[in-house]
Amino acid sequence: MQTPVPDYLKHVLSQCQRNVGGQLADYIPELAQADPNKLALALSTADGMIYSSGDDGHEFTIQSMSKPFAYALVLEQLGIEEVLQKVGVEPSGEAFNQISLDKELNIPKNPMINSGAITTHSLIQTTAGISRAEQLRRFLSELAGRELSFDEQVYTSEMKTAFRNLSIGYMLRTVGALDTDPVEIVNGYIQQCAIKVTVKDLANIARVLANGGLHPKTGECLLDRAVVRQVLSVMLSCGMYDAAGDWLTTVGIPAKSGVSGGIIGVLPGQVGIAVFSPRVDEHGNSVRGIDIFERLSADMGLHLMEGTPSAQTIIQSCYWAGKNDDVRVYELRGVLQFTESEMLLRNLQEEPPGDTTIVLDLTNLTLIHDVGARMLFEGVERLQQDGHRVVVVDSEGILSEAQMKGNKRVVVKEKLTKYLEKFQ
Amino acid sequence: MQTPVPDYLKHVLSQCQRNVGGQLADYIPELAQADPNKLALALSTADGMIYSSGDDGHEFTIQSMSKPFAYALVLEQLGIEEVLQKVGVEPSGEAFNQISLDKELNIPKNPMINSGAITTHSLIQTTAGISRAEQLRRFLSELAGRELSFDEQVYTSEMKTAFRNLSIGYMLRTVGALDTDPVEIVNGYIQQCAIKVTVKDLANIARVLANGGLHPKTGECLLDRAVVRQVLSVMLSCGMYDAAGDWLTTVGIPAKSGVSGGIIGVLPGQVGIAVFSPRVDEHGNSVRGIDIFERLSADMGLHLMEGTPSAQTIIQSCYWAGKNDDVRVYELRGVLQFTESEMLLRNLQEEPPGDTTIVLDLTNLTLIHDVGARMLFEGVERLQQDGHRVVVVDSEGILSEAQMKGNKRVVVKEKLTKYLEKFQ
Amino acid sequence: MQTPVPDYLKHVLSQCQRNVGGQLADYIPELAQADPNKLALALSTADGMIYSSGDDGHEFTIQSMSKPFAYALVLEQLGIEEVLQKVGVEPSGEAFNQISLDKELNIPKNPMINSGAITTHSLIQTTAGISRAEQLRRFLSELAGRELSFDEQVYTSEMKTAFRNLSIGYMLRTVGALDTDPVEIVNGYIQQCAIKVTVKDLANIARVLANGGLHPKTGECLLDRAVVRQVLSVMLSCGMYDAAGDWLTTVGIPAKSGVSGGIIGVLPGQVGIAVFSPRVDEHGNSVRGIDIFERLSADMGLHLMEGTPSAQTIIQSCYWAGKNDDVRVYELRGVLQFTESEMLLRNLQEEPPGDTTIVLDLTNLTLIHDVGARMLFEGVERLQQDGHRVVVVDSEGILSEAQMKGNKRVVVKEKLTKYLEKFQ
Amino acid sequence: MQTPVPDYLKHVLSQCQRNVGGQLADYIPELAQADPNKLALALSTADGMIYSSGDDGHEFTIQSMSKPFAYALVLEQLGIEEVLQKVGVEPSGEAFNQISLDKELNIPKNPMINSGAITTHSLIQTTAGISRAEQLRRFLSELAGRELSFDEQVYTSEMKTAFRNLSIGYMLRTVGALDTDPVEIVNGYIQQCAIKVTVKDLANIARVLANGGLHPKTGECLLDRAVVRQVLSVMLSCGMYDAAGDWLTTVGIPAKSGVSGGIIGVLPGQVGIAVFSPRVDEHGNSVRGIDIFERLSADMGLHLMEGTPSAQTIIQSCYWAGKNDDVRVYELRGVLQFTESEMLLRNLQEEPPGDTTIVLDLTNLTLIHDVGARMLFEGVERLQQDGHRVVVVDSEGILSEAQMKGNKRVVVKEKLTKYLEKFQ
Repeated sequence: MQTPVPDYLKHVLSQCQRNVGGQLADYIPELAQADPNKLALALSTADGMIYSSGDDGHEFTIQSMSKPFAYALVLEQLGIEEVLQKVGVEPSGEAFNQISLDKELNIPKNPMINSGAITTHSLIQTTAGISRAEQLRRFLSELAGRELSFDEQVYTSEMKTAFRNLSIGYMLRTVGALDTDPVEIVNGYIQQCAIKVTVKDLANIARVLANGGLHPKTGECLLDRAVVRQVLSVMLSCGMYDAAGDWLTTVGIPAKSGVSGGIIGVLPGQVGIAVFSPRVDEHGNSVRGIDIFERLSADMGLHLMEGTPSAQTIIQSCYWAGKNDDVRVYELRGVLQFTESEMLLRNLQEEPPGDTTIVLDLTNLTLIHDVGARMLFEGVERLQQDGHRVVVVDSEGILSEAQMKGNKRVVVKEKLTKYLEKFQ
Repeated sequence: MQTPVPDYLKHVLSQCQRNVGGQLADYIPELAQADPNKLALALSTADGMIYSSGDDGHEFTIQSMSKPFAYALVLEQLGIEEVLQKVGVEPSGEAFNQISLDKELNIPKNPMINSGAITTHSLIQTTAGISRAEQLRRFLSELAGRELSFDEQVYTSEMKTAFRNLSIGYMLRTVGALDTDPVEIVNGYIQQCAIKVTVKDLANIARVLANGGLHPKTGECLLDRAVVRQVLSVMLSCGMYDAAGDWLTTVGIPAKSGVSGGIIGVLPGQVGIAVFSPRVDEHGNSVRGIDIFERLSADMGLHLMEGTPSAQTIIQSCYWAGKNDDVRVYELRGVLQFTESEMLLRNLQEEPPGDTTIVLDLTNLTLIHDVGARMLFEGVERLQQDGHRVVVVDSEGILSEAQMKGNKRVVVKEKLTKYLEKFQ
Repeated sequence: MQTPVPDYLKHVLSQCQRNVGGQLADYIPELAQADPNKLALALSTADGMIYSSGDDGHEFTIQSMSKPFAYALVLEQLGIEEVLQKVGVEPSGEAFNQISLDKELNIPKNPMINSGAITTHSLIQTTAGISRAEQLRRFLSELAGRELSFDEQVYTSEMKTAFRNLSIGYMLRTVGALDTDPVEIVNGYIQQCAIKVTVKDLANIARVLANGGLHPKTGECLLDRAVVRQVLSVMLSCGMYDAAGDWLTTVGIPAKSGVSGGIIGVLPGQVGIAVFSPRVDEHGNSVRGIDIFERLSADMGLHLMEGTPSAQTIIQSCYWAGKNDDVRVYELRGVLQFTESEMLLRNLQEEPPGDTTIVLDLTNLTLIHDVGARMLFEGVERLQQDGHRVVVVDSEGILSEAQMKGNKRVVVKEKLTKYLEKFQ
Repeated sequence: MQTPVPDYLKHVLSQCQRNVGGQLADYIPELAQADPNKLALALSTADGMIYSSGDDGHEFTIQSMSKPFAYALVLEQLGIEEVLQKVGVEPSGEAFNQISLDKELNIPKNPMINSGAITTHSLIQTTAGISRAEQLRRFLSELAGRELSFDEQVYTSEMKTAFRNLSIGYMLRTVGALDTDPVEIVNGYIQQCAIKVTVKDLANIARVLANGGLHPKTGECLLDRAVVRQVLSVMLSCGMYDAAGDWLTTVGIPAKSGVSGGIIGVLPGQVGIAVFSPRVDEHGNSVRGIDIFERLSADMGLHLMEGTPSAQTIIQSCYWAGKNDDVRVYELRGVLQFTESEMLLRNLQEEPPGDTTIVLDLTNLTLIHDVGARMLFEGVERLQQDGHRVVVVDSEGILSEAQMKGNKRVVVKEKLTKYLEKFQ
């Protein structure tokens, strides 16, 4: 059989096709020349699957959708605390092109409005000869998994009418939020906005965030978990401009739109979503794009508040093994965070005191968080106090050195079947 | 062994004990007489476990923590659309005691500020002889699982100095947001705020939201899923007043505070949390309460953006059964939403065309959402088109009539083992 | 002949009759029942002449036009400094019915918006058994020169729907701007607004301000000069609500409107003006009333910035008298303030040193300000130093004791002709 | 004798010398190097006298005090209506360096804030080869009565750090308030601000406004009366930035400050005032300058609301002339506006019907406004209807052709004495 997911995406696109509201953004000639009928949707899962439909090979400029990733890059480079000194995290309640400085701190309210994005751009650290925009292009290429390029025509055209961004740049210079030539920074910022992407690129980028910063296939850590949390939080509260409350209730997906007609969304732990349709509303958000997001949220339950309880599935199986059926085995599966650990410990609580050998098998875990490791070993210790012999089987090496610290002696690196042989 | 979770809670409390910032709220004498050293924390899991620590039996008035539940009640009674005509969902960017009317619609910006909460109170539907406050008390008692009562002294005292709320009430009357006597409504609202609760009550109430509106033990539907989504979304964007962006990044838990010193939080699908410590900051938020939430979020990864991928655990096991090992069995586990269904279908895709009997066992699912059911049966149909014979085993009756519609003939209600016997 | 001034007024009224814009105020039934075609205009001169035209005997409620006079009354009773602690003088930039508190001081921004007017009403000092509204009625009756009365029907009707004012009252109580029962104060304020007046009453009241607080005929001091200055300044910057700059440029007359359709205006030193036409614009200002004021300003040059230089006319005549034509006489006329004194002294400067007898005749002065008296006597002293004998003739007693202090010996109280006889 | 006015000025200066509040403006190096102890005051009368004290020869840059005069220049060049399409007249309620655009019209709120001043600068009409700043320099030189020059050092220095003005310029370009290169306009605006003046220059400039736009000595019309009215109105409501209401009540003089430490003020019909002291407060207003203005207002009654009634002095004398004492002569004096005309007509009303020859002598009038001429000839006509023969003696040619239109036959251009000879 063929999974019907691609058909779902097609169906959603066909439903939105009737929606012809909105206008092509016209503040730069290149955007006004876009084909208004282009329509594309891509959806990627946290574990690396990607579906797409419509004009999924069509390239467009990333525009404001670059903002969360420039923010992610500087958070990685400078750390959250240092960046918070320069750009806030509060919704501005104003249109995206307002200056919106925090009154007390004199810093832009958040990195999703232009003043915050220009300041963020200025914070990108580069090595000699590499521009900030190029640095970001490389970073996005890594997340997208292919080499992205700049749309020089859009970039050149936009620089000619970048009055508002120049105004914002000079104001940032005035208040000290920028300490270098505003024209150069605005120039770089506009180049950043001219990186070309497809919906598939965006969905690939989004799934890195959906997957907690890890490469969905290699497992390589591309972004620190805390950075992902920060970026997604700011996307949620500041990403869709004015009507944050409306977006949160009706869609409930951290997202960011670009005036070229794209919207990129991330449902943590689940999916990355990207849409493209160039007709935008008065806020600069793609009209069909919003429509699509609303349908995905309503029809597919893709909403942040539709929390999926994963705790109940943490114990894959529990059985007696060994020649005498006297070895107690717990096979775990999924991700071990607080709620899963709590469930695990609650089950371990049922073990009566005694001198049983208890085996906790981590082989099928996809991830173990620090809190999960802490709670796991706390449970191990308590079982030991009850008289048991406890062994943690980590054949895949999912535990980090730091997580094992002080508990190495209970961890074995063999496969479970291999380990259990000794009890035969 | 004993689960270490209670010890974690105790540890968190002890760390916060050093924090003596904030002041007792003094705008009504009763609050000013609270014991400033009282401190309590309760945590409940979506599946019905509850942990608590500190002064967990101490009763205090619910105050503004009643707001999300009055909102939930009227959403249930009138439907989301009708309530949206009366009270918005946008953050106000202003202090809780401002009037904050939406300029175009002349309705309160959201139900978490006083003007919105007073309007919400006025929308509570009651039967003759039952006051709105009493109606809410009964509703909260049901969620909490015990009969709650009013603190008459606080209520009477607060009425005497309710100048600001009376001012707000009259302004709402002026703009038409209220159409009845403001004094009566404000009176009722203040009584609503005087319902007495403990942190355990609050944690019990919170877990109904965490569990998607279902009673965590009986599975009874106490709140519509859409209502839960709406309430949690509004708590997230408007619950902690001014610094919504800061709360979202550093805590990331939909929450609501009360000036008496409590904070109630909900992490959807995972936990309900309630804290109590009566010293509040200038926004009326419990100082230690915020401290506790920050620690829980940072130390335990309890943050909305720490999404747990549950998709990978949806297939509990997959094996060949039957005398001839020619019956293909998929045992599912957990909750079947979009991402889990996508994963299931991706696996089913691997089945080569043929005339195999394929059994999908739902027995261990805790919940199947509509989108999950739709995708399941879509997969069934496609497998049939490939020539397979497909059977859905639903021995627990987890599928609703509506979900099964048109597919009843593939569903069997027997236990899996019983059903498989026919292939022996 | 007959002065054409009444014909001018009639002409202005007839021109405005074509203007049928605006609506009857409908927030209380009584105002909505007004005859929309009523139209009246009165103009009074600082020296006591009054002209009127149209429905000049028609009574209407004073409404917000009571605000500057309640302010004047409390300024008289408490002093400017004390009142400034309670009500500011800054334009609010908001509609009249907003609360508009100064953010730092938590006091209403000015006495012309409702919050400021309600606070001002609460400051009226009365003796036992006399209500604040009655105290103001007596004060206005004195200024108007006839006994005014309350419109009980309007007052009773307005109290029933005074939701906004009650809201404002409770908010003022909350922030401490009121320290007594808001219902009682709002009640009194609404009664204050129900005092009945005609345009002639208003013009009579206005000319007291135009005349520096003096009764235009008896010369009795009804209002302190500093109070007049304060009241007129506040009327200018805050009297016509939102578009203060537009009013100032196109009309340039300190004024206050009432929702009943009246506008009262004062051009200091020149005229008092009152108009009535009950159709009001969205700001609650009489549409025809504004039209009339604009015509009076444009056509008759009645604009604050059309300053009339009076300095050049201060010396009525200057001549030699006495048998030997050796007594130098300066007859003064008009009002002696700084600019006139400067002109006088500039002329006296021309007197060569010598032992001439110099007579300064104040008989035809209408007023001598303190600064005028100071400069006059300073000039006297300098002439004496030059060797002259100087005499100030004050047959009408225009100099106060305080003004003469230390210079009594140069002042004679005889008539000039009588005094000059001794030189014959 | 010597007029004591200079001593008064000296006295005021010496009182302010104790006031050492404020700081040198430091946003450009040149201003920060000013001598903080410099102190100067000049006062000019509407008829051309000038007094000055302190460092009255010290030159400083005009800065924001150029704003009202650039506004006056473009009002003259384009007319009030056209300029109102580009720059409003409403107080902004914001600091001078905010952009403050009118929300509906997208134009700067007024010409006294930087955005309005930059837009105003762009409106200056010039001929080829003359920059806008040079055009204004010539205009100000004419008003000041001497050739002013630019401070090139200040200008060059300020251009280097003109970030805020560049930001404002680009924003104006964005919203279409500017339609040319913002850098060029801001450049010109900063040059305009670098015109060097002394307090005497400023007082000379101010008195042209005080004198209704006429050269105080030659009587030449340098500025249209309507323009003067407009400029003074805007100075009053927007000139001293934030605390317009406070300035109006406590000082009551239309004024404009510059960050270099000067303040220029105009009391229409009376005096021009200029002060200089470089220490400024947080609003950029000279601390001692404000102090001086408050003292002049309080001590000398120089306040807009201290209106001087000039009506009573319009009739210089009234007597019977001619051989038979049957020619009735009215000698008028001062300025003939509405209130003076009303007084004159009121007196003419006393003339009984008959065939008397009535002579109205305008020789001593300094000015006759259009409304005055209209009312005068209306009175003439009514006297004629009563049977009188009326002659208007205008030996100085004060009546314009337009004012005489239709009434030429009653006007004689001889001197009064010459004219009266025919009745001897």
